[in-house]
Amino acid sequence: MEVLAMEKISKTILKQVIIPRKPESYKGTYGKTLIIAGSTHFGGAAILATSATVHAGAGLVTVATTPEKFTAINTNIPEAMTIDYHNKKELLAAILNNNVIAIGPGLGTSSVAVGLVKAVLNNTKTDQTVILDASALTIIAEEKIPLQTTAHIIMTPHQGEWQRLSQLAIPDQTEFNNFEKIQGLNPDAVLILKKHHSEIYYQDMSFQIDAGNPGMATGGMGDTLTGIMAGFISQFGYSLATIQAALLIHSVVGDKLSKKQYVVLPSKIIEKLPKYMAELSTQTK
Amino acid sequence: MEVLAMEKISKTILKQVIIPRKPESYKGTYGKTLIIAGSTHFGGAAILATSATVHAGAGLVTVATTPEKFTAINTNIPEAMTIDYHNKKELLAAILNNNVIAIGPGLGTSSVAVGLVKAVLNNTKTDQTVILDASALTIIAEEKIPLQTTAHIIMTPHQGEWQRLSQLAIPDQTEFNNFEKIQGLNPDAVLILKKHHSEIYYQDMSFQIDAGNPGMATGGMGDTLTGIMAGFISQFGYSLATIQAALLIHSVVGDKLSKKQYVVLPSKIIEKLPKYMAELSTQTK
Amino acid sequence: MEVLAMEKISKTILKQVIIPRKPESYKGTYGKTLIIAGSTHFGGAAILATSATVHAGAGLVTVATTPEKFTAINTNIPEAMTIDYHNKKELLAAILNNNVIAIGPGLGTSSVAVGLVKAVLNNTKTDQTVILDASALTIIAEEKIPLQTTAHIIMTPHQGEWQRLSQLAIPDQTEFNNFEKIQGLNPDAVLILKKHHSEIYYQDMSFQIDAGNPGMATGGMGDTLTGIMAGFISQFGYSLATIQAALLIHSVVGDKLSKKQYVVLPSKIIEKLPKYMAELSTQTK
Amino acid sequence: MEVLAMEKISKTILKQVIIPRKPESYKGTYGKTLIIAGSTHFGGAAILATSATVHAGAGLVTVATTPEKFTAINTNIPEAMTIDYHNKKELLAAILNNNVIAIGPGLGTSSVAVGLVKAVLNNTKTDQTVILDASALTIIAEEKIPLQTTAHIIMTPHQGEWQRLSQLAIPDQTEFNNFEKIQGLNPDAVLILKKHHSEIYYQDMSFQIDAGNPGMATGGMGDTLTGIMAGFISQFGYSLATIQAALLIHSVVGDKLSKKQYVVLPSKIIEKLPKYMAELSTQTK
Repeated sequence: MEVLAMEKISKTILKQVIIPRKPESYKGTYGKTLIIAGSTHFGGAAILATSATVHAGAGLVTVATTPEKFTAINTNIPEAMTIDYHNKKELLAAILNNNVIAIGPGLGTSSVAVGLVKAVLNNTKTDQTVILDASALTIIAEEKIPLQTTAHIIMTPHQGEWQRLSQLAIPDQTEFNNFEKIQGLNPDAVLILKKHHSEIYYQDMSFQIDAGNPGMATGGMGDTLTGIMAGFISQFGYSLATIQAALLIHSVVGDKLSKKQYVVLPSKIIEKLPKYMAELSTQTK
Repeated sequence: MEVLAMEKISKTILKQVIIPRKPESYKGTYGKTLIIAGSTHFGGAAILATSATVHAGAGLVTVATTPEKFTAINTNIPEAMTIDYHNKKELLAAILNNNVIAIGPGLGTSSVAVGLVKAVLNNTKTDQTVILDASALTIIAEEKIPLQTTAHIIMTPHQGEWQRLSQLAIPDQTEFNNFEKIQGLNPDAVLILKKHHSEIYYQDMSFQIDAGNPGMATGGMGDTLTGIMAGFISQFGYSLATIQAALLIHSVVGDKLSKKQYVVLPSKIIEKLPKYMAELSTQTK
Repeated sequence: MEVLAMEKISKTILKQVIIPRKPESYKGTYGKTLIIAGSTHFGGAAILATSATVHAGAGLVTVATTPEKFTAINTNIPEAMTIDYHNKKELLAAILNNNVIAIGPGLGTSSVAVGLVKAVLNNTKTDQTVILDASALTIIAEEKIPLQTTAHIIMTPHQGEWQRLSQLAIPDQTEFNNFEKIQGLNPDAVLILKKHHSEIYYQDMSFQIDAGNPGMATGGMGDTLTGIMAGFISQFGYSLATIQAALLIHSVVGDKLSKKQYVVLPSKIIEKLPKYMAELSTQTK
Repeated sequence: MEVLAMEKISKTILKQVIIPRKPESYKGTYGKTLIIAGSTHFGGAAILATSATVHAGAGLVTVATTPEKFTAINTNIPEAMTIDYHNKKELLAAILNNNVIAIGPGLGTSSVAVGLVKAVLNNTKTDQTVILDASALTIIAEEKIPLQTTAHIIMTPHQGEWQRLSQLAIPDQTEFNNFEKIQGLNPDAVLILKKHHSEIYYQDMSFQIDAGNPGMATGGMGDTLTGIMAGFISQFGYSLATIQAALLIHSVVGDKLSKKQYVVLPSKIIEKLPKYMAELSTQTK
């Protein structure tokens, strides 16, 4: 067994977080999530993130995207609602009305996308959670947009995206340096650094998962993690434990699939999520 | 076991209603259903309701929606036909030509939608059944549209929609008050109140199901119930027993799925419906 | 066991027709099929017929339809090619270039559709097979279009469509009367009369299947039969045996599915077709 | 056992090529692939080739196609990205930025398609691999485009396409003649001649697979092979062994499926690919 520098996230976190639902609950109990994602050339990212959010258990899921992607989203994940992210009034209403807002998958870095990132950071507040992924992180790095919202912030860069955001070359992305950089961006933000054995940084704590496999090294996997993260926070509430569980289950499901699949496709992880969540929840009892 | 105030609907109702089909029958034997549903932002609701109707066994299913959703519907449920609900002549012909008309899922509350609700209530008559769900109920509440059709009426609000329609705050939605409010709306209408252990009100009778689970608390579940209800009435005919069976099987299938799925997705219930209907029908013999 | 007036088609026909393919063969060996189907409101019919043709084993399948349906067809059955049936030059080339042409599912009765039916009947010849279904039969009845092609003709009406074509009310659709009417339309045409225990009329012979079940009484089932018929003739060649086998397997697969499904959806029959064809072929050896 | 004139490719090549992935790897490790495919009438070919590439394990997959196909691609294979091949700037950037470029499936022979073939051959260089299939080969034959790129070239014609390219009638496509013709086209190019027991020609070597079955003789099968080839080279690197393994696994998976399916649909081969790759990889250990 390899020696890990950081505290490993134990699988017991899954049993703590994925608890049996209360009998008297309705879809509102499990939160409202807004996914701001997709653009002409990256439509699949919006589908994967949205579908992951729904399968992870968010009560109500809306995807804000470009209307040319509505048909693919309706076909692929009819449980989700759609809005046009070019419509500022509707977008703002959606930002105000949702508990969790995930922005970035397949968004691109157009001026429209820049405006969307700013709209999210300017209009969210305490009790909401903002998940910043992919293009959103690139935009924040390029435009030097401050992370000023009072909402909870979770960033989910892979190492290249973190380099752009932190100015740390990959070999310099040490635990010490990462802590320092997050401090400069927003001291309450959570950093999820996606890599071989992904890491979580939060305040003065850091954690690492001991799961995941190279079969998961395929396009769309990050979009899927973003969706699972959004779905978990939506239904289980924002907490370090929820974040740990979301990060871990993504890789645990990937590990289970990799026993029978050479490449682990994101859409397969999404499909199997409700089943593995049930198994892990049942083990709790 | 919890004490129920109302008469529980026994699972034996499923065996009474879902009887083996007669050998000499054709698709017309199982009725024609029109689903009026969907709008730009809520395309998935139309898909779920339509697909549920087809899988529940309606003979011929047409969905009236906005044409931008035709591709998603054709892809997802090729067994259904489509019409454009902006075309008044075609819409009216479809209202006259179908046995069961379900209106509301994902319809929104635009002036077009208001016109559709009025068209249904003004042009249906005895022997037809009208199912009013979701946006249709909101429109009726907001526009104070009287429920004057001589067709059978079934309303399927969740508690929030029923509050809008009845002016009863959720804690005031008692059996007594509910009866009184239905009486004021249309004394022959059936109210299906969707909640933890959903209830049926019809004339001076009330019933409750003892099935369903919190894994079903997810967007699109109500659209699916509407489709099942439409499909059951289409093929088994309008009766209290049919309504009870449709409401119950939706939750019974959900309960079966929840043993292996943490979240029970509406599309999974739809997919499994023909199988569970076969099992329940076979038990009858 | 019920007494049948006509010769029953034995399941041994399946073993005779669905023989193991020759090792040295390529897609051209199994024929080229053109499906002319679909219109704005009936897109699903084109999908079902095309998908059935592909799953039944035609070598190359092209669907001529309205371009607004290309996306749904590409998504649902990527193995098929598409052409726009409004483009007369391309349509004519396709009619000349395919061995089997099936026309009618979801086509509607517009002037465009009338032109398509005429184009098929005017431009096909010996060695080709034309399958006339659904809207194509209605058009032929309404427009009194003579069945003058020298190609093989197969008509697949249900009883209502046959009434329109033959002027025989359903109770008058006796064996004797049916023979007489086919004689008047085209003495070499094959009539497949879809009903409880569907019938085949060819020259002075008639046959009936002893398969099928009321779970198959659902929209889209006829489109599926048309596709299977086209696929079988494409790969096994035009013959009475092929026609019998295609008609029979459609119901045999439906019967297998009906043991576990209350409603037998057309898309399920299509999905299972390659599996049951393999089982039946293997029994031959 | 039949006597083969050429060296048979042994299944042990699969165990050599499909080795367990290294733990510390990310999606970039498995290469970037560009699929240039599809046109208005041949949208499915682009879907099959792209989906095969993703399922075969390429790290990042982009499809350059006509925008009218984006919705079908997003729906069918959300893991892939899209670009519009009419946009010369974006296309050129994509050609420069990808390791493997496969061009041809469903591309047609329009002037746009001709320009795309030239763009690929003019802008690729050493260390890249270009796979020329279907329409791309027809264009090269008709336009007499020289194969001048310094990139690795793989051609995947069926016998008819090879006839057009080589001017060799099918009976004249002997080992000797094929070698001579490749020499004239590009002495370092690999020829994969698709036929009953497909052949590989490379420099002075030739190989043949002893797998494949007539159930695979169906439209779209070649597009699928192209995608598998692209995915294998993307992740395992360009080598004769990789090429042999890609060609062989396509038929091996087809053979496994043909035990239970009379017709082996391309989409089924794609779906099962990760599973069979896992099984073959595990046997290695």
